[in-house]
Amino acid sequence: MSNLLIKNIGLLATPMGTAAKSGVQQGAVQFLYDAFVRIEDGIITEVGSGKPRAKNGETVVDAGGKLVTPGLVDAHTHLIFGGWRQNELGMKLHGKTYLEIQNAGGGIQSSTNATRMATEEELTAKASLALDEMMAFGTTTVEAKSGYGLATEHELKALQVIKNLNDRHAMDIVATFMGAHLVPKEYKQNRKEYIRLVCEEMMPLVAQQGIAKYNDVFCEADTFDVEEARQILEAGKKYGLRPKIHADEIEAIGGSQLAGEMGAISAEHLIVCPPEGIEALAKGGVIACLLPATSFNLGATFAPARDMVNAGVPVAMATDFNPGSCPCLNMQFVINLGCLKYRLTPEEVLTAVTLNGAAAIDMADKVGSVEPGKRGDLVIWDAPDLDYICYRFGSNLVKSVIKAGKVVK
Amino acid sequence: MSNLLIKNIGLLATPMGTAAKSGVQQGAVQFLYDAFVRIEDGIITEVGSGKPRAKNGETVVDAGGKLVTPGLVDAHTHLIFGGWRQNELGMKLHGKTYLEIQNAGGGIQSSTNATRMATEEELTAKASLALDEMMAFGTTTVEAKSGYGLATEHELKALQVIKNLNDRHAMDIVATFMGAHLVPKEYKQNRKEYIRLVCEEMMPLVAQQGIAKYNDVFCEADTFDVEEARQILEAGKKYGLRPKIHADEIEAIGGSQLAGEMGAISAEHLIVCPPEGIEALAKGGVIACLLPATSFNLGATFAPARDMVNAGVPVAMATDFNPGSCPCLNMQFVINLGCLKYRLTPEEVLTAVTLNGAAAIDMADKVGSVEPGKRGDLVIWDAPDLDYICYRFGSNLVKSVIKAGKVVK
Repeated sequence: MSNLLIKNIGLLATPMGTAAKSGVQQGAVQFLYDAFVRIEDGIITEVGSGKPRAKNGETVVDAGGKLVTPGLVDAHTHLIFGGWRQNELGMKLHGKTYLEIQNAGGGIQSSTNATRMATEEELTAKASLALDEMMAFGTTTVEAKSGYGLATEHELKALQVIKNLNDRHAMDIVATFMGAHLVPKEYKQNRKEYIRLVCEEMMPLVAQQGIAKYNDVFCEADTFDVEEARQILEAGKKYGLRPKIHADEIEAIGGSQLAGEMGAISAEHLIVCPPEGIEALAKGGVIACLLPATSFNLGATFAPARDMVNAGVPVAMATDFNPGSCPCLNMQFVINLGCLKYRLTPEEVLTAVTLNGAAAIDMADKVGSVEPGKRGDLVIWDAPDLDYICYRFGSNLVKSVIKAGKVVK
Repeated sequence: MSNLLIKNIGLLATPMGTAAKSGVQQGAVQFLYDAFVRIEDGIITEVGSGKPRAKNGETVVDAGGKLVTPGLVDAHTHLIFGGWRQNELGMKLHGKTYLEIQNAGGGIQSSTNATRMATEEELTAKASLALDEMMAFGTTTVEAKSGYGLATEHELKALQVIKNLNDRHAMDIVATFMGAHLVPKEYKQNRKEYIRLVCEEMMPLVAQQGIAKYNDVFCEADTFDVEEARQILEAGKKYGLRPKIHADEIEAIGGSQLAGEMGAISAEHLIVCPPEGIEALAKGGVIACLLPATSFNLGATFAPARDMVNAGVPVAMATDFNPGSCPCLNMQFVINLGCLKYRLTPEEVLTAVTLNGAAAIDMADKVGSVEPGKRGDLVIWDAPDLDYICYRFGSNLVKSVIKAGKVVK
């Protein structure tokens, strides 16, 4: 592996450390002017100021006096799916809600049909293109969920696709099993049997094959209620799958409280998270993984990010990339929404899309900040400062992406 | 000029005609499957279905079965400015309004300072990069305003920059004089004298040099009131400059009614346009040029687009690209907002960003639709249908851009 020296960095902006930040630290970003970063064998070995001398055999990248940040971490995506769902736009424009479309045979079930039809190769090729595009927008680490298979064969297929991609693509990918994304139509009259299938058939195989690290459940009215979610997450724990939970996206039925009780590593969405939910997240040490592009697309309100930060809940932000509620894979738009809609500061937003995103997938010891010992993942921006990337929306402001010490864009 | 045949178009979607569409026609888009388009000497000469035979010397472009639309028309931009204003983000996050920031020395005046400092060459180079990026997002025609000079020398400089760009860049650019963007600080105590300067000194020179087609005024509380706007637009008419007007962006002080009375070619923004304003626009045959990305960025409400369409007002949509209220130059995001926030149909949105945009700058006889006699401006999308480009947000879905018969992206 070659060594890399990135010099002439006008401004290096990075959170520091290896743990999710508490509320007061959410915006604790270190700014280093006239900086350089040295990467050896894919790992950052030196961060400093001034004009470094290149070592023998080191490739030198001139950052042109621009802004450098850690590579972005997209800690919540539904990367693996067949088809798209642009056909639902008309229903949305006629006022149908997300749950109404789902109950009418659209939504997740229709993506499930397309995902079951697709081969492993087809899904791999499709997701690989999405990863290319994510990386071009500055993302260097993603979480990816199964959850459109909803049958043992197809859930395993999706997780195998994630494994293939992690092996072959420059992107780091962390896999989450999400058999409990929806009760598929063939089990609508027998949801207990589907839950049994998830817990007793899928999970043992997932664990045996070692193809997922997390177990996520969609805890929502019409999907899985709190007691079902608890049962599914407890079952996952037995197989070494740490809990994640889609909570309080549309209705607050107790998902955030469950996340706190169970010590989930993260709770996702939290659009309508009530004060007692925020309290539970804080107590349980749960990271709030917020998905503002989904709120934007659904025309919903935005999660109470400021209240969470104030309560000491570490806030991460991710895309939620999926074919229904958020067909957007661009973390830069998430950054824009973090300021515009959550009213977080640029420093708080940067922490959310790097270090706290990494912490939400237990990768904060490896990625999420620019400091010695971390992986050499960083973005050189066509921007003079951090405010600029928060303010300019609609353009791709990435000048260059460096992944594990290699220039990939 | 070479001739071009675009074949294997899966779906050609285009409005038709040369006039702004009335309400019922806003969504009257023609769909042609398995289509081809022939462009000779920059002008479309044939549109048809099936497999055409290439003529001698014709360059053939294979659209790969994808969607093709007319090139996008961005009918409202403040393209020419020095500097950026990311430093105002902090003020916004602390709850300052647009007018408060302006009154505190930020806003347009701070861009005016930067624009006055910049040379013609610097402004040309900067705007040229923005045009490149716009084109990469699918825009083939733009309107560009002066209005950050606010002094005779600097307003003429900005219009000269637009002329240079129109001569040298592949983009078609239509110039609007906007000396009445703000009363600059040196005239704050003597606004009458500034208005005299705009009407009696700037306008004659603009007319003499033939460097603008339209005269725009920012009719808003704290900027120019309705009587001042009327005076400025009347003066412009004497010099052959057709009226445009920024109306009802923040407060409805009568700008839309004035637009109707004066027969302005278009009224811009109209975020808080009241029913009597819509009526006036309809009566006056004024095109509503809506700027949804500005509403998005300001956290404002969205213009009553549906009411306008219902009232028979032709609706165009544009970016409003500028360094303050909308640092976004991406017409694809405008398309997304047209569906998500205005709740217009994909067909209505397509008409708004092509033919009605062209009509708002009196270019509908030349661009804005794919039909014989129009300029060969079109976009090949990496998309199977029109719904898809409305639904997928955050990505650049352009596969290829053809401008006057040349492949420019």
